[in-house]
Amino acid sequence: MVIVMRPDSKESEIQEVAKVVSSLGLGVHISQGTERTIIGIIGDKRKLGDVPLELMSGVEKLVHIAESYKLSSKTFKPNPSVIDVNGVKIGGKELAIMAGPCAVESREQILEAAKAVKKAGAQFLRGGAFKPRTSPYSFQGLEEEGLKLLKEAKEATGLLIVSEVTSERAVEIASKYVDMFQIGARNVQNFQLLREVGRSKKPVLFKRGVATTINEWLNAAEYIMSEGNYNVVLCERGIRTFETATRNTLDISAIPVVKSLSHLPIIVDPSHAAGKSIYISALSKAAIAAGADGLIVEVHPQPKMALSDAAQQLPPDEFSRLCKDIEDIAKIIGREFKYGG
Amino acid sequence: MVIVMRPDSKESEIQEVAKVVSSLGLGVHISQGTERTIIGIIGDKRKLGDVPLELMSGVEKLVHIAESYKLSSKTFKPNPSVIDVNGVKIGGKELAIMAGPCAVESREQILEAAKAVKKAGAQFLRGGAFKPRTSPYSFQGLEEEGLKLLKEAKEATGLLIVSEVTSERAVEIASKYVDMFQIGARNVQNFQLLREVGRSKKPVLFKRGVATTINEWLNAAEYIMSEGNYNVVLCERGIRTFETATRNTLDISAIPVVKSLSHLPIIVDPSHAAGKSIYISALSKAAIAAGADGLIVEVHPQPKMALSDAAQQLPPDEFSRLCKDIEDIAKIIGREFKYGG
Amino acid sequence: MVIVMRPDSKESEIQEVAKVVSSLGLGVHISQGTERTIIGIIGDKRKLGDVPLELMSGVEKLVHIAESYKLSSKTFKPNPSVIDVNGVKIGGKELAIMAGPCAVESREQILEAAKAVKKAGAQFLRGGAFKPRTSPYSFQGLEEEGLKLLKEAKEATGLLIVSEVTSERAVEIASKYVDMFQIGARNVQNFQLLREVGRSKKPVLFKRGVATTINEWLNAAEYIMSEGNYNVVLCERGIRTFETATRNTLDISAIPVVKSLSHLPIIVDPSHAAGKSIYISALSKAAIAAGADGLIVEVHPQPKMALSDAAQQLPPDEFSRLCKDIEDIAKIIGREFKYGG
Amino acid sequence: MVIVMRPDSKESEIQEVAKVVSSLGLGVHISQGTERTIIGIIGDKRKLGDVPLELMSGVEKLVHIAESYKLSSKTFKPNPSVIDVNGVKIGGKELAIMAGPCAVESREQILEAAKAVKKAGAQFLRGGAFKPRTSPYSFQGLEEEGLKLLKEAKEATGLLIVSEVTSERAVEIASKYVDMFQIGARNVQNFQLLREVGRSKKPVLFKRGVATTINEWLNAAEYIMSEGNYNVVLCERGIRTFETATRNTLDISAIPVVKSLSHLPIIVDPSHAAGKSIYISALSKAAIAAGADGLIVEVHPQPKMALSDAAQQLPPDEFSRLCKDIEDIAKIIGREFKYGG
Repeated sequence: MVIVMRPDSKESEIQEVAKVVSSLGLGVHISQGTERTIIGIIGDKRKLGDVPLELMSGVEKLVHIAESYKLSSKTFKPNPSVIDVNGVKIGGKELAIMAGPCAVESREQILEAAKAVKKAGAQFLRGGAFKPRTSPYSFQGLEEEGLKLLKEAKEATGLLIVSEVTSERAVEIASKYVDMFQIGARNVQNFQLLREVGRSKKPVLFKRGVATTINEWLNAAEYIMSEGNYNVVLCERGIRTFETATRNTLDISAIPVVKSLSHLPIIVDPSHAAGKSIYISALSKAAIAAGADGLIVEVHPQPKMALSDAAQQLPPDEFSRLCKDIEDIAKIIGREFKYGG
Repeated sequence: MVIVMRPDSKESEIQEVAKVVSSLGLGVHISQGTERTIIGIIGDKRKLGDVPLELMSGVEKLVHIAESYKLSSKTFKPNPSVIDVNGVKIGGKELAIMAGPCAVESREQILEAAKAVKKAGAQFLRGGAFKPRTSPYSFQGLEEEGLKLLKEAKEATGLLIVSEVTSERAVEIASKYVDMFQIGARNVQNFQLLREVGRSKKPVLFKRGVATTINEWLNAAEYIMSEGNYNVVLCERGIRTFETATRNTLDISAIPVVKSLSHLPIIVDPSHAAGKSIYISALSKAAIAAGADGLIVEVHPQPKMALSDAAQQLPPDEFSRLCKDIEDIAKIIGREFKYGG
Repeated sequence: MVIVMRPDSKESEIQEVAKVVSSLGLGVHISQGTERTIIGIIGDKRKLGDVPLELMSGVEKLVHIAESYKLSSKTFKPNPSVIDVNGVKIGGKELAIMAGPCAVESREQILEAAKAVKKAGAQFLRGGAFKPRTSPYSFQGLEEEGLKLLKEAKEATGLLIVSEVTSERAVEIASKYVDMFQIGARNVQNFQLLREVGRSKKPVLFKRGVATTINEWLNAAEYIMSEGNYNVVLCERGIRTFETATRNTLDISAIPVVKSLSHLPIIVDPSHAAGKSIYISALSKAAIAAGADGLIVEVHPQPKMALSDAAQQLPPDEFSRLCKDIEDIAKIIGREFKYGG
Repeated sequence: MVIVMRPDSKESEIQEVAKVVSSLGLGVHISQGTERTIIGIIGDKRKLGDVPLELMSGVEKLVHIAESYKLSSKTFKPNPSVIDVNGVKIGGKELAIMAGPCAVESREQILEAAKAVKKAGAQFLRGGAFKPRTSPYSFQGLEEEGLKLLKEAKEATGLLIVSEVTSERAVEIASKYVDMFQIGARNVQNFQLLREVGRSKKPVLFKRGVATTINEWLNAAEYIMSEGNYNVVLCERGIRTFETATRNTLDISAIPVVKSLSHLPIIVDPSHAAGKSIYISALSKAAIAAGADGLIVEVHPQPKMALSDAAQQLPPDEFSRLCKDIEDIAKIIGREFKYGG
């Protein structure tokens, strides 16, 4: 960290700041410029705790040089992590495809969806049982009943199950049914919930919030990891911008940026980003070409009958075509995916 | 709601859509344009549930004409609500000023802060006991111990207590100590938590999220109100934009916009919006001039010693000067506030 | 367009609005809802001119159903346009790759760059002669001298030339040297300049502004096209968001969105979007996979010696590897590009 | 400026960077941290020109400590500038109020508007003669004819004239008629145009772009000032955010931020920010309370008949009431404004 002193700061103020920093067991490097003096801090900046250096006399601002997250950073672990979800690896050579309806609605619906996505080659079935919705008057999910149906679909197809948890109670219930927890965009900084899944050892699919910087996201992942659960897979799902043509703006650059800052795998959710099924195929191919470790795609056996987010769910035949394209692109970029047919 | 058909839609498609809408007990008005046909839906649109009209053949898009929130809307209750918090009214003629440190740190600190803000004229003491922080390595609050100190400060000064709750457990604990719950920006769509405070009857100070539209915010308030708790006070605290000169961008327009859409009172938090204490006075005066029903301001007896968000906390003398200015502006715009000295 | 009346509007107000609309030669459809009345307007809404319907008594708001651009819309021309730039076609099966340094700096630099990008397979040489820079103290370009060097590079390699114009004077000068004008992001709504290139017949590479919605962009294209120049190629180059990890956020969704709204070709500029050369390859592959008609990439023979935007320019060997990848991805998605070696 | 070296940088790389910096006549301060070395640069950083330090081996990133604008900065001129516009001072104790219709439409309209705003106390008449509009099919202004009408209104009322210029030709024409040029939001980085008004000595009302950071804005002002014209008045008019309830989001914080960084006066345009006349009064009062040096407000004698932006223009009686409120608030905050009646 660097402390920038004001142009009019006095020598005594500079010395006072240096003294405080030194007293915390940190080194100090004073650099006298023509307009300003800057003070470099040497050592682990967490020793600073919350000492409010920016309020000391003569200080103009603090400039952070290094990231504040640790366990999720590449500095901590230079090589990419491969997360093992009951036998399926995410972040290795093979791409991970998760697919299924926005919400679990009925036995028929989820079984039909599971068979379709399994056939196309997906390794994971997604389906919401606890649904956070903007309005309290919208369908909120089947809760435990939905999780039981997901488990049934798993038994019928061999797919692994990923499903969102929205509260400590949901974590407790879902832990009996799912292979991987999902933390949704709205809960990206629900730190109680992050700690709760951190105390589990189950892998976590951790979505970025619509207004979360990559820096905040990696800091939030730290809440999960600092509780001992290192099995975190990031998921980019679109950020909020001024553009209204799509539901959110898929931040495709987040893929190479995360790969340069963190060892954690990252997959992409094109469905929530686009909000319209006609854009999903283009965005999915783009994500894989950009280096994503997989996708989570909304697929509904009969999109027109869906109880939530109908407009963004793909029918099985389009999903199957998409899986074929992904198999082809994977080869070009040195990855692998087995299209099922 | 209006359904816009595609320019190439067929008469049979238009009739099919009309049939589905009618079957739900809603009226239909078909309007044949030169390029497109549009279908107006008449009646309570919640009857539509989640029927995916946008996926029907020939449909281009749906256009929402009316808001989806109800209890928080001015249509539901045209006159402004006045929320009574144990005798102090928010939303009436008198302005409500809440002040105190970002976090409760010690008995001395909170008592000193309480006396200072009471003296200046504030009616509420704020102070965080459960602190959501971006990094898990930052100070997280004194929890119940902090709440006890707040209660002690209340007994010493007569100030009412408002403090943030971040989980169901925190709600349970805090309900014994505080006069008003605060829901923070990060939890604006933590629907479980909203429902929890909705089941209480205690007033709720409900902050907007950094990327929450006013429409989403009023929908989220609906989660609290639909559980039976109508004592909701909104709090604008800055939104996330591209500008980095301030921590967030105070959306000053939110004040007249909320007043035109909702009957709920709205106050402003200039401290989190600005992120720097030198801007707080200007923003506070602007908020009151724009019609806000009050302020929540961070005040610390010794800002330089603060354990969190030091840069944005005012010292007591500056807060006192601000209260004097507010008294003066209040008169000009037909409101009231009693400066204490 | 639909006029939404206020819940408390009177019958006389509704009739008055209907009368005004009819008097302009437009049809009217009144639809009485349970809460509100809406009035549909039938016919070419440009007949409305700027009549301020939203200010008439009883009117709550206007809702636009159809786009306001015409010549650039798919409704006007359903099939994709193929723009012929002196023999090279943009928007057809073959991908168009434009490459070269941010700014023309010297004969050696531009000739070396031209040979390198030609060898890799690019069909266009880019290079700024008129440089708009944030600070007046930064390098502003070689102006006509730079254009002459570009022409020399064209003669030496057979590459076509695309270069930015920033004023009417620049258009006049550049028209003697370039095959395609470029309008930069900062001038996306410099309507005088758009009209000026519209009066030319030379193809225009038209970049989106950092805060321009797709709707505004297509309206701005209309300024060029309505002067008679239909040879417009759009270029997505990143939008401004809250994320600071990249210079801008590449809006990858703009590709399928533009393809669904407009017949104009669209290419992508990954260099300005990313701002860092390490992300360019990932974003370029993503753009092609998403359906872009080409790329414009900054390539500098010696990036470390560049006089502007050094951090975002690729060295020739990395550009060559990228062209190989593009050839491979092109095949997968039914496009073509000939990698040169 | 500070150069941050990568954690794995070699001593030779550090020395090489230091050598390059020294060779440019700048001082160097090397500070060895536990993880990283940082190199402070001492002296006028413009000496660096565009040397691409960020591409040198071992360099991770550059961190800018000081602003890159100079003439507009408070470091250059610590005391507030007062701009004299033919006798009326902007930035002193007295507030400057500019008002008038969005566009000049007819002699009757502009004369009526002028008389009304003069009566209320405004010192400036605004009115667009060159109108940049999103769509080429909207009304584009009366051009020179409009300017002549403005001059006539000036002669009738004694008001000063401020009007937008959108091209070099417009500057030439307008310089015969107006007292102050206005540069609109869309042209904030139209550097040719900025230089053109910089070569004049006429005061310039310089609006912020909808996606311009304050830092970029002050750099853009530098284009005007570096040509010798120091008579620049800034105008905040709302920025583009995700919120759609208002046309733009008024960045009220820009007022204290600009006051802390620059000596230039700043006024506020609530009309374009809000986009709806019902919010203008609240935003105007907020702006003055926050310390703005004045306002520019759209007032139309008959808003319903306006040819552009009808929804955001105030009728004269509401403008008059607003002027009364401004007189009252001005007193409270130590400013002055004379309400006319």
